[in-house]
Amino acid sequence: MTLILYELGGLDGRRYSQFSWRTRLALAHKGLAADVRPVAVSDKQAIAFSGQDKVPILVDGDTVVSDSWAIAAYLEQAWPDRPSLFGGPIGTGLSRFVNTYVDRSLVPQLVPLVMVDVVACVGPEDAGHLRGQIEGLFRRSLEELAAARDTDILGFRKLLDPFRATLRGQPFLCGAQPAYADYILFSLFQWARIVSRFELLDPADRLAAWREAMLDLHGGLARREPARAA
Amino acid sequence: MTLILYELGGLDGRRYSQFSWRTRLALAHKGLAADVRPVAVSDKQAIAFSGQDKVPILVDGDTVVSDSWAIAAYLEQAWPDRPSLFGGPIGTGLSRFVNTYVDRSLVPQLVPLVMVDVVACVGPEDAGHLRGQIEGLFRRSLEELAAARDTDILGFRKLLDPFRATLRGQPFLCGAQPAYADYILFSLFQWARIVSRFELLDPADRLAAWREAMLDLHGGLARREPARAA
Repeated sequence: MTLILYELGGLDGRRYSQFSWRTRLALAHKGLAADVRPVAVSDKQAIAFSGQDKVPILVDGDTVVSDSWAIAAYLEQAWPDRPSLFGGPIGTGLSRFVNTYVDRSLVPQLVPLVMVDVVACVGPEDAGHLRGQIEGLFRRSLEELAAARDTDILGFRKLLDPFRATLRGQPFLCGAQPAYADYILFSLFQWARIVSRFELLDPADRLAAWREAMLDLHGGLARREPARAA
Repeated sequence: MTLILYELGGLDGRRYSQFSWRTRLALAHKGLAADVRPVAVSDKQAIAFSGQDKVPILVDGDTVVSDSWAIAAYLEQAWPDRPSLFGGPIGTGLSRFVNTYVDRSLVPQLVPLVMVDVVACVGPEDAGHLRGQIEGLFRRSLEELAAARDTDILGFRKLLDPFRATLRGQPFLCGAQPAYADYILFSLFQWARIVSRFELLDPADRLAAWREAMLDLHGGLARREPARAA
């Protein structure tokens, strides 16, 4: 049975959704291929079959799973003999904590820094949709948000400190080898790399070396997706 | 071979060190008993044998292990057939992240809220030592720090949000059952409970119910340690 992954598609075939990158890397971790289908942010009709309006969505025969966390949990239980994403019950619980922490504490700090670049990577309808959503949330224009990013980035980097400190003691968040919690954090950097030339990390940052290692994983899967050009 | 645990001891036999509580609960999790020996903060001579100056210290025959994280890792490898603290390599990596996150992000926010109460629970020499250390760090008196705690607590509670949100989906941080990462977070509340009557959580907070469950674990081990009286 062919797996089908619905994920956000931008201009020039860009696959920029951070949440879909979590799923893409989880699929690669399990050694699974999927038929990947791009969906525009504004094209709710294309995914109406899923009974909700967000991607990523994984379709496995009659099974439809939406939400990147639920997809990872599905892959783990459906392919228990493939390399583990979570490493058992305790690792599952703690991966969920990392997912929650990244989504609630890091994503809201990162979005205002690069959203101005996202809207240049998508079609006009998606751009209008995303602009309206983010400007409503932050009550400032994307351009105003971006104008502050050279200083706001310092706060984002500071929030990364517990990850940075953890990586001084082990090569990946999940220990000696990467697993799903690494994909969660990496998805933010991959998203920024694809949509923006704004640099999130100081080159000397321990996290920058970890990011390079993540880009190399699974035959360079993440690195093959083009970074935003000048 | 009898295990020996050196940990901070205060007035009236209070065992208040948050880091020692991580070790105590880890020992109980493994079904291990230890001969527990109190040490004053200012009594460096009592633990000079360990080659460093901090408790907790675990002594297992010729093996001397200091630092609560290193002790947990030692217990896990020395008693692999007992209930696991980390749940394998991925859980170990992620538990280390939680340890780092709690120590770097939560502890520095909590210390100024309750340190004024800690110094009332220890002998005069320890009180002077702790006051000097914390007042030097924060450049304010313990009393000034405490005067702001009714508002500063709101920031601490906000920092707990990713934990709170995680516990909406599962009973413990480590999933269906508690393990070491739960002990890490719980140690902060146990510390505060023993030294202070200042309430860290709103009673309706999901974390308050989790804290009650943690107090009940291992035959009520943590609950048996008296809370600070009026």
